[in-house]
Amino acid sequence: MSKKIDASIIGVTGYTGLELLRILLNHQDVELKYLISQSHGGQRISDVWPHLKGVCDMKLSDDNAAKVAAESDILFLALPNNEAQKIMPEIIGKTKIIDISGDFRLKNFDMYEKYYGQKHEYTEGVEKFVYGLTELNKDEIIKAQNIANPGCFAITAQLALLPIKEILQNVSIFAITGSSGAGKTPKEELHHPVRNHNVKSYKIGQHQHIPEIIQTLKISEKQISFVPTGGPFTRGIHLTAFPEFKKEMAKNEVAEMYKNFYKDKPFIRIKENIQLAEVIGSNFCDISINEAGGKIVIQAVIDNLVKGAAGGAIQNMNIMLGLPEAAGLITLSPLFP
Amino acid sequence: MSKKIDASIIGVTGYTGLELLRILLNHQDVELKYLISQSHGGQRISDVWPHLKGVCDMKLSDDNAAKVAAESDILFLALPNNEAQKIMPEIIGKTKIIDISGDFRLKNFDMYEKYYGQKHEYTEGVEKFVYGLTELNKDEIIKAQNIANPGCFAITAQLALLPIKEILQNVSIFAITGSSGAGKTPKEELHHPVRNHNVKSYKIGQHQHIPEIIQTLKISEKQISFVPTGGPFTRGIHLTAFPEFKKEMAKNEVAEMYKNFYKDKPFIRIKENIQLAEVIGSNFCDISINEAGGKIVIQAVIDNLVKGAAGGAIQNMNIMLGLPEAAGLITLSPLFP
Amino acid sequence: MSKKIDASIIGVTGYTGLELLRILLNHQDVELKYLISQSHGGQRISDVWPHLKGVCDMKLSDDNAAKVAAESDILFLALPNNEAQKIMPEIIGKTKIIDISGDFRLKNFDMYEKYYGQKHEYTEGVEKFVYGLTELNKDEIIKAQNIANPGCFAITAQLALLPIKEILQNVSIFAITGSSGAGKTPKEELHHPVRNHNVKSYKIGQHQHIPEIIQTLKISEKQISFVPTGGPFTRGIHLTAFPEFKKEMAKNEVAEMYKNFYKDKPFIRIKENIQLAEVIGSNFCDISINEAGGKIVIQAVIDNLVKGAAGGAIQNMNIMLGLPEAAGLITLSPLFP
Amino acid sequence: MSKKIDASIIGVTGYTGLELLRILLNHQDVELKYLISQSHGGQRISDVWPHLKGVCDMKLSDDNAAKVAAESDILFLALPNNEAQKIMPEIIGKTKIIDISGDFRLKNFDMYEKYYGQKHEYTEGVEKFVYGLTELNKDEIIKAQNIANPGCFAITAQLALLPIKEILQNVSIFAITGSSGAGKTPKEELHHPVRNHNVKSYKIGQHQHIPEIIQTLKISEKQISFVPTGGPFTRGIHLTAFPEFKKEMAKNEVAEMYKNFYKDKPFIRIKENIQLAEVIGSNFCDISINEAGGKIVIQAVIDNLVKGAAGGAIQNMNIMLGLPEAAGLITLSPLFP
Repeated sequence: MSKKIDASIIGVTGYTGLELLRILLNHQDVELKYLISQSHGGQRISDVWPHLKGVCDMKLSDDNAAKVAAESDILFLALPNNEAQKIMPEIIGKTKIIDISGDFRLKNFDMYEKYYGQKHEYTEGVEKFVYGLTELNKDEIIKAQNIANPGCFAITAQLALLPIKEILQNVSIFAITGSSGAGKTPKEELHHPVRNHNVKSYKIGQHQHIPEIIQTLKISEKQISFVPTGGPFTRGIHLTAFPEFKKEMAKNEVAEMYKNFYKDKPFIRIKENIQLAEVIGSNFCDISINEAGGKIVIQAVIDNLVKGAAGGAIQNMNIMLGLPEAAGLITLSPLFP
Repeated sequence: MSKKIDASIIGVTGYTGLELLRILLNHQDVELKYLISQSHGGQRISDVWPHLKGVCDMKLSDDNAAKVAAESDILFLALPNNEAQKIMPEIIGKTKIIDISGDFRLKNFDMYEKYYGQKHEYTEGVEKFVYGLTELNKDEIIKAQNIANPGCFAITAQLALLPIKEILQNVSIFAITGSSGAGKTPKEELHHPVRNHNVKSYKIGQHQHIPEIIQTLKISEKQISFVPTGGPFTRGIHLTAFPEFKKEMAKNEVAEMYKNFYKDKPFIRIKENIQLAEVIGSNFCDISINEAGGKIVIQAVIDNLVKGAAGGAIQNMNIMLGLPEAAGLITLSPLFP
Repeated sequence: MSKKIDASIIGVTGYTGLELLRILLNHQDVELKYLISQSHGGQRISDVWPHLKGVCDMKLSDDNAAKVAAESDILFLALPNNEAQKIMPEIIGKTKIIDISGDFRLKNFDMYEKYYGQKHEYTEGVEKFVYGLTELNKDEIIKAQNIANPGCFAITAQLALLPIKEILQNVSIFAITGSSGAGKTPKEELHHPVRNHNVKSYKIGQHQHIPEIIQTLKISEKQISFVPTGGPFTRGIHLTAFPEFKKEMAKNEVAEMYKNFYKDKPFIRIKENIQLAEVIGSNFCDISINEAGGKIVIQAVIDNLVKGAAGGAIQNMNIMLGLPEAAGLITLSPLFP
Repeated sequence: MSKKIDASIIGVTGYTGLELLRILLNHQDVELKYLISQSHGGQRISDVWPHLKGVCDMKLSDDNAAKVAAESDILFLALPNNEAQKIMPEIIGKTKIIDISGDFRLKNFDMYEKYYGQKHEYTEGVEKFVYGLTELNKDEIIKAQNIANPGCFAITAQLALLPIKEILQNVSIFAITGSSGAGKTPKEELHHPVRNHNVKSYKIGQHQHIPEIIQTLKISEKQISFVPTGGPFTRGIHLTAFPEFKKEMAKNEVAEMYKNFYKDKPFIRIKENIQLAEVIGSNFCDISINEAGGKIVIQAVIDNLVKGAAGGAIQNMNIMLGLPEAAGLITLSPLFP
């Protein structure tokens, strides 16, 4: 039996950190080394999050990031946007890094500033990151030292559109997300009496995941109309795209392109009809191709905390470290009902 | 004090019938005459639906429809699709009628057959009905004997698009509805363990409310891509339309068209941001005009059982009978939270 | 037509204030005079809460309470606990007052201090208040100048137990409430990802509504075991009481006591089976008497914002002002489904 | 590496069957042999339940039960009540059996008839079954050929009361369950518009899980007042017990009894405060001991489909087959949020 991989998580007490933990605890090639929390160092993770009692009672530490990096084979950063770039200079190069924040996804700093509302503090680090869209960039991820993991809306939109990237003229997208995507800090739009039984779009045309999609699909801001929306559920994203093509396309042709593109991809399932509940808890992205009026309709669903964050990150880890791509993930069955 | 209007409801024990009752009980110009239920004749409505105990304890009757029509000033039909056309020949002409089913909305019988999956049994009745889209057809409704009330998805889509009807090239629509729209009969997609925490589109491009929209907007089937979707909540529809125009339109120009078109309409509220919770329980349709990428995004929300069924029907009744359009409806405040 | 009653609300932008507004707007004997909000004075209520646009667009004012009291026939205080006692000295005696906070319910100041965690700042005001448990204290409410309206858990428990008050030995109570009971301020236990799909008891045996129940039922703290619980829904309280009696009681005897006690009470409905959904939006309290094992089981449901707050307060207002007890309330049909 | 255990499931397409599958797919000592479905034989399980595509694409078979039993090391029966007893005579003795229905739990046939509403058809089989309450009967389960797995309400109540069994005088219990407990067949009380935002008790004092509790705790029907209730969520049971003791007991004494009794039990977690969300998806039963008024309050939460059905059954399988008790289960982390 070969030595296990030492994995550490910075920012483990957030929802993405917890989900990394849930999955890595079942990953047989991985051993958890450090669980880092600035606010809860010294406590057990199961004191902070008692659902973990008996599952994981590891101590949280506030050790400095450089030390943690040096002693880990892989380091996950599950920090809020704008936090990762602050500690990155001290850890980069010390180990393999997967950053789940938005800090190192965009190659264009103007776009970063426009959509994130502030100047990037570590622009020279950005080029050292490979964008972790596994189904597109696997060859680069194999060789990567640092991964910038995609945003949850962004990965859903990109997976929904990648196979038709070359023929895409423009696209209108409606995406509805569960409340867990906004994190653990209470705020008005996540207040239960407000969120329960409600549907509300926000940041229409202005969401910070838009520039990632543009960057990958090589389209302009004018070519994508993105309407992010909050729904009355906890987990998952359900996305509907109305693409227009450079040339006329029959539904069957389009469907064929998807089947080919995703032929060997373990976590993409092409279905005739998709529903959010069929992916919750799992790393799957289900995609359907339908027709309505004169147009093709592409739909995709993911669990925002799994394929849209922790699961996708671990899929990238597997590839970076030479493990089977689906290790520790394929057995993660959707929790249905 | 003038004599009250005698109103009767056929099919009162369904969700739309109950909602007619809830509103009419507070309508000061109306007296309830007959509550008709084939399956529960003889029982009190509050025995069948105990939430009504003390609010309305009227006896249900299974009197024949012709008698009920003859003795009522206004007759509401809240029957399932394909049921209203069966009894219509015996009641038409006997009183003013508002049919809330899909039976008398479509002037084109081929479209009816295509979308409802069967031949119409009373085609000669169809021309006697005015389509009850109040915000468009008020002048005809004033003089109408019979109203075919719009479908819940259809009214939302039409209200979202009416002001730009003349310049509309084509439109892609995503609409998500609560479970009450599908009625009181248990079935798999309404099974709580399935519907809770789920989002699922159905009848993509094939929903029976599409031909109504086409008929009103005077567009072809190819020009509308409609994606109806079920969401994990009970009441309401949240609709997002991505219209394309015959000529270039700035957001402000479009917004101006909406403000003008709906200037004196008591139940249309133009807002910058809309959310489903702000209309639940009320007869309002809230509409927003936004911009995303190169496109205009129109959104609309209604309570499917009120503006999308019972409330819209009563608004039409008011107009048919010379009452103030908003009587019994404007005081119906949204139930928030 | 007689002059309408001038009613004002202090703290109108909270959930209870909004509900007072929703009901009073439909109350035909009442005219709204002042809507007071310290934080939003000068704005329209419909700017703060856009669901009210077109329903109520009154200006909010931050006029001082004494002036508001002097110019109103009835004044509702919908402030957080501990706030009402601060302004009470300046308004008491100037008009009829209904306070919906917990400040003037308890005659025993030690109990107040123990359960509210601080000293009462206006103890001499307490005796000027009648406890607004309408179904028990109607005779005093008729003559009252000031009403302390019951807490939402407290009124449910008391209505569930009043008829058996004299024979009650002790009682165990489990009560589950919707999230709206905790108000509009975001906090962890009301964070949607936490509250959705969760059930959690809190303040077991220590909830501040316990001493009200004790005071009314004339029992000791030892005689009531109260387990308040938060559930994954927005509105309503569902309460289950397991009483023990001083003597053996058959179910029929007990049921008879309830029917007699509540004979002429317009908002109490005795049913064989109750369910929360049957009272939402209405002022009803539904009660059932069942048997399990050797014991009697009493259950009660209310809408916490209506019978448990705003509706109960308006019922008291009706009585204080000589209006029919059910005015503006009985037509408030439950919103079902 | 030793040979894996061949496990088969009869009735795999129900909710309990699906959950057995979800867990066994991750159980490293187990290989799935037959997945039996009378209605779907010949189809793939992932055609019937598409969330399983890529996770488990095994063919369903309608092979006869005797053959399946003969070729399996362990056979799970996940059939509706009254179905298991029909096929039991042909399979008993052919392999180790775990029956998850209510058919073989009760030693007293009169009780069976009273609570299940029909005569037992295979009474002579009953004595061959050990009641699968793992935390009590482990020694017998080690040697057992056949296990009757407890009902979901029953196991929650028993785990909440086992440590105080000897001193229990009587007990009042309120338990609220998610909708998945009632299975996959649509019916009125599980209709989404009815169940969403609702709380309703049913079969008060008459639920079929009561006699199991009585049998284990050795109390009479008069000593237990059980109020089963349906809540607006999918998974989980939250139970509150108000026990009365034969002698006076301090909270600390009681808490000590629980800690001792459950000292080495891997799936029981004693906590100060429990919440439903902390066990969903896992095999844990969390228990708290609190005080309210003069009484002790015991609360317990489980996932009804895991500890209350499939997970508990697999825990028993582990013990019957000499595997570690927690194999394949302890890594099943709660899905939070």
